[in-house]
Amino acid sequence: MVMSRKVFHRLVDYREVLDIVERYVRLSPKGIEEVPIEDAIGRVLAEDVYAPSDVPPFDRSLVDGYAVCALDVARAQEDRPVPLRVIARIGVASQPPTFSRGECVEVATGAPIPYPADAVVPVEYCDEVSNDTVFIRRRVAPGENIDFAASDVVRGQLLAERGTVITPAHVALFAATGIRKVKVFQRVRVAIIATGREIRPPGTELESWCIYDVDTYLLASLLTSRRCFTYVLKGIVPDEVSKLKAVLDEVLDEVDAVLIIAGTSAGVDDITYRVLSQYEPGIVAHGVKLRPGKPTIVAVVGDKVVFGLPGFPVSCYIAYRLVVEPVLMKLAGARFSSEGPTVRARLLTEVRGIIGFRRVVPVVVSRRGNELLAYPIPIKSSSIAHFLSCDGFILTEPSTEVIKRGTLVDVILINQQLSISDVLYIGSHCPLAERILRKVLGPNVKLIYVGSLGGLRALLHGGCDVAGSHLLDPETMEFNVPYVRRLGLRDVVVVRGYVREQGFIFRRDLAGKVSSFRDIVDLGLRFVNRNRGSGTRVLIEEILRKEAEELGMEPKELASRIKGFHVEFTTHEAVAIAIAQGRADVGFGIRYVAEKYGLGFKYVADEVFDLVISRSAMSEKYIRNVVEFMGSSAFKELIREYSGYKVHRDTGTVIFEA
Amino acid sequence: MVMSRKVFHRLVDYREVLDIVERYVRLSPKGIEEVPIEDAIGRVLAEDVYAPSDVPPFDRSLVDGYAVCALDVARAQEDRPVPLRVIARIGVASQPPTFSRGECVEVATGAPIPYPADAVVPVEYCDEVSNDTVFIRRRVAPGENIDFAASDVVRGQLLAERGTVITPAHVALFAATGIRKVKVFQRVRVAIIATGREIRPPGTELESWCIYDVDTYLLASLLTSRRCFTYVLKGIVPDEVSKLKAVLDEVLDEVDAVLIIAGTSAGVDDITYRVLSQYEPGIVAHGVKLRPGKPTIVAVVGDKVVFGLPGFPVSCYIAYRLVVEPVLMKLAGARFSSEGPTVRARLLTEVRGIIGFRRVVPVVVSRRGNELLAYPIPIKSSSIAHFLSCDGFILTEPSTEVIKRGTLVDVILINQQLSISDVLYIGSHCPLAERILRKVLGPNVKLIYVGSLGGLRALLHGGCDVAGSHLLDPETMEFNVPYVRRLGLRDVVVVRGYVREQGFIFRRDLAGKVSSFRDIVDLGLRFVNRNRGSGTRVLIEEILRKEAEELGMEPKELASRIKGFHVEFTTHEAVAIAIAQGRADVGFGIRYVAEKYGLGFKYVADEVFDLVISRSAMSEKYIRNVVEFMGSSAFKELIREYSGYKVHRDTGTVIFEA
Repeated sequence: MVMSRKVFHRLVDYREVLDIVERYVRLSPKGIEEVPIEDAIGRVLAEDVYAPSDVPPFDRSLVDGYAVCALDVARAQEDRPVPLRVIARIGVASQPPTFSRGECVEVATGAPIPYPADAVVPVEYCDEVSNDTVFIRRRVAPGENIDFAASDVVRGQLLAERGTVITPAHVALFAATGIRKVKVFQRVRVAIIATGREIRPPGTELESWCIYDVDTYLLASLLTSRRCFTYVLKGIVPDEVSKLKAVLDEVLDEVDAVLIIAGTSAGVDDITYRVLSQYEPGIVAHGVKLRPGKPTIVAVVGDKVVFGLPGFPVSCYIAYRLVVEPVLMKLAGARFSSEGPTVRARLLTEVRGIIGFRRVVPVVVSRRGNELLAYPIPIKSSSIAHFLSCDGFILTEPSTEVIKRGTLVDVILINQQLSISDVLYIGSHCPLAERILRKVLGPNVKLIYVGSLGGLRALLHGGCDVAGSHLLDPETMEFNVPYVRRLGLRDVVVVRGYVREQGFIFRRDLAGKVSSFRDIVDLGLRFVNRNRGSGTRVLIEEILRKEAEELGMEPKELASRIKGFHVEFTTHEAVAIAIAQGRADVGFGIRYVAEKYGLGFKYVADEVFDLVISRSAMSEKYIRNVVEFMGSSAFKELIREYSGYKVHRDTGTVIFEA
Repeated sequence: MVMSRKVFHRLVDYREVLDIVERYVRLSPKGIEEVPIEDAIGRVLAEDVYAPSDVPPFDRSLVDGYAVCALDVARAQEDRPVPLRVIARIGVASQPPTFSRGECVEVATGAPIPYPADAVVPVEYCDEVSNDTVFIRRRVAPGENIDFAASDVVRGQLLAERGTVITPAHVALFAATGIRKVKVFQRVRVAIIATGREIRPPGTELESWCIYDVDTYLLASLLTSRRCFTYVLKGIVPDEVSKLKAVLDEVLDEVDAVLIIAGTSAGVDDITYRVLSQYEPGIVAHGVKLRPGKPTIVAVVGDKVVFGLPGFPVSCYIAYRLVVEPVLMKLAGARFSSEGPTVRARLLTEVRGIIGFRRVVPVVVSRRGNELLAYPIPIKSSSIAHFLSCDGFILTEPSTEVIKRGTLVDVILINQQLSISDVLYIGSHCPLAERILRKVLGPNVKLIYVGSLGGLRALLHGGCDVAGSHLLDPETMEFNVPYVRRLGLRDVVVVRGYVREQGFIFRRDLAGKVSSFRDIVDLGLRFVNRNRGSGTRVLIEEILRKEAEELGMEPKELASRIKGFHVEFTTHEAVAIAIAQGRADVGFGIRYVAEKYGLGFKYVADEVFDLVISRSAMSEKYIRNVVEFMGSSAFKELIREYSGYKVHRDTGTVIFEA
């Protein structure tokens, strides 16, 4: 597998892609069709639409009342009503008569205004004493209660331009002016082809060392979100150049554009790259100045555009949004800004760029008064769930070394609209914390999992309302509070959460055999440790220290005898899964996770999970409900469902304020 | 038509409607169906979905490189590489071997991590000198370039709750964890029935005094925008109680909810009200504390919900958004906030409430730095085009007399997402101004038509960038500048626009007969005047004054001899249309409009249309392009297309700065 690697010749900016493609092929819609206006939502208008008629088409009454000359009733008062002769009564769709000074016409809402009326007195200010005289008790200004002809839309006014994506507002304007059908561009047909030997379709059993196909469904649902696109799924193509080429050749006749997932680097194993190299003009751009998103291919095959998208889902998403979607929208005939919907927000921490690239920095957005705040969330290009739990992302400029804290940035939204939750939780993932917050707050909480320290840091910068933390301080062997102090958090309270049992996790067949590091050494078991800096690691080191002391040796020496003591995994789950899959024999973590993966567990010590809450959030009813719930008997009931979880004597009370 | 009018007994708040309805019928989805995840976009999830597997399912490499023990390469440097023995090479979907200290395994991106590796050194920092030894030139931190098992999604983690409206982000999570299908609630089926004798379907010839059906298509397209609704259109029902009842009875079997348009007041002619009164429990709320939107009916017929919506399109829209949509979303099983998407903005002028009602105040939203600004636009409930050209609306509280300028308000968005244009134009509607701005700015301009004075006021309050104005000052007989001075506008420039010919407009058969007010008097013609305060009215009064002087009489006396001189219409178009429809004989306005409606015209004087531009906008390239275009020869070409339009000697130059 020592491969010949081709360097990406010239990375392009995503904003150059449209121009590059158009050097080879004109990006324009394939045809026009006429559709009823109510079916035109989300489609792209193929013509400038001008109003064929005025709205309203005539002067009409906005109320039930009497059409008068405003001048005739200029002196009308409650106690000095002005009498007018009623010469006619007209409803809607009636020919308006003409009247003279001193006269009036009773009109229904929507009825035409008879000449020379220039106002309508609402019926509640009129007393009809006999069948032909009405007393008017109020003056009206000229124009009052009249909906003048063409006051809403003037015939010939531009209602919507060619290239507009049609919304309900346009449909209303079309209907109001009498338009029943409009010309729209044909939908853009897109084929999605997945590649990769390890990719399996969801809904099937997952073989070892394989992963499910995310990108096909992510792309399909992004395409579905726009009514001007349609798609066809071509499934997962076997990992052979000839097979991919055959599928591509076949599908090129049916569609306007093709998205091929993965295999986009320039190695011999990268079949997408190799296949697209075989066409003319073929690859027109290879490598985009995006991180993640770099290994994106733009190719032109005949008069069709073919994209090779990176396989890591976040990269794939970014490449779709910034590179593919603008091309597809151009093919759809739509006016479209490359980035789609954005909001402007103030950056809560500094952001480092990558020289020569636009770095994609996911952020969560919160609101303080009138201002939107963006807090950057560090994620990997493989972590699609983490990415999509964010609200949007910012892009650094290729020349940017650092964007300073406090800078106003444009956040490109992940969903079509920004939804600001009442409560923003950032911190460690714990199934019980998730359950509590969802139970009390329902959909009004947004949950972002970046670990305990990540949560406290977010709180420090004002990036969230609540952080969930289980950090053990090695000096004091206290949980969380020392970290709150050390980070210098201000205006926060620590609410005691609950206790989770920690201990050795191992294969079930080792039950009864593992209760110390000495057992691990004696049995020659493969250990996986936790990462330095984690609370669990602190506990592991403490246990190691005590055991070494009992054995009369240095902790370092004992550690060196443990196979894999240097192997650092970053979560409880990663440790348990490695053991469940037979890649290791023993680790250290919480009982809940051990039982979840069907592993053995030997209790050693307790870990405390607390909520750290900003003082301003604590004053909100939402959060007070959460804290109250944790102190309730209902919570004591709930925690029983979670094996290895226990209430603490201080559960639900504020144990520290800063 | 003196009717028996029933007073609305108790107006309800729109937020009470759900509870009121649920006293009679449980609002819940009618069933559940299973759909492939990519078809689930916009549907409502019928189950809590927990992750059935971990993502990723095993520890895998994020790069092409060498899986190592981080400790083994802790001292590696560019000039002091550390040699490791390569014991194996694995690609994706391969069983990982186990290695010992001092050894390593070459891994492809996505390949599983062999024990006891805890990091991967990217290939670019490795030199393989022989087939089994690699020199590592860089240290790696534990965990580096490893995508740990379950680091993105933990098995059992809540992916989405019952009641969630599914987005592409959810689909990605479902796919990643192996879910192929999800249970969603059945779509809510809605019938739309239009009523009203004067209503005609778009696409047909409009009879006199009739109007096109807007509401049916507005509602249909709003329903279309949500994939959890479907609808059936029942057309325009003849204006008879028995016929409406028959249609309603028939459709109630097919759908979950019915929307009946218009006839919702409590008069004898209001057939929707009369029909819904005949059912049990029938009308459960009549009248909502909304202005516009008050005459809304909520009825329960059997286990179905029937709404009577006010006929004026703005009222209909408001009733749909605030009263109907929350009920339909509950029927769809969705968690939904009653108001849909909102943004928070600072109010640029004070807003008066209506005690006892929530007043609907349309606003346009602009951005200054990080802040969104909301400028209220006064409109009538019939003016659907004006309303829908706004970005959203605010709601006053029933107890609010006034919301002060500068208050932060929640703007309920009209479209799903807010789009801030580069340039916001508020002012008079002129087809040439519209053409210029669209030509130069394309979709980057938002146009709001509220008249000349409305535009200058918006500019005064910082509510727009550009105002279009044709106001004549009676004192100086100068255009626009005196108004800019008098309103105290600051930091604006007046750019001279162009000239429009004004004069008498009359029926074609009067050609050659009308060139003065005296002719109008002599021929006994029906005149329609313009509203006081308009520039055209100033001109009319000036001409009248001169004519009266020549005739040796008071202007008042001459005016009194003109039939209809007191009749005030508010636009050029309203005047021309009244004449074209035979409701009047003569008026005063611009040549362009006269010719457009096929009327005769006699030139009297010129009117000047200027652009008033904020100084900050003038510094933007967009606006400089507009001003430059007006000074170009291309503009001189363009203006020829507009009959009665002429360039001014100062066209395109700044004639005044404040």
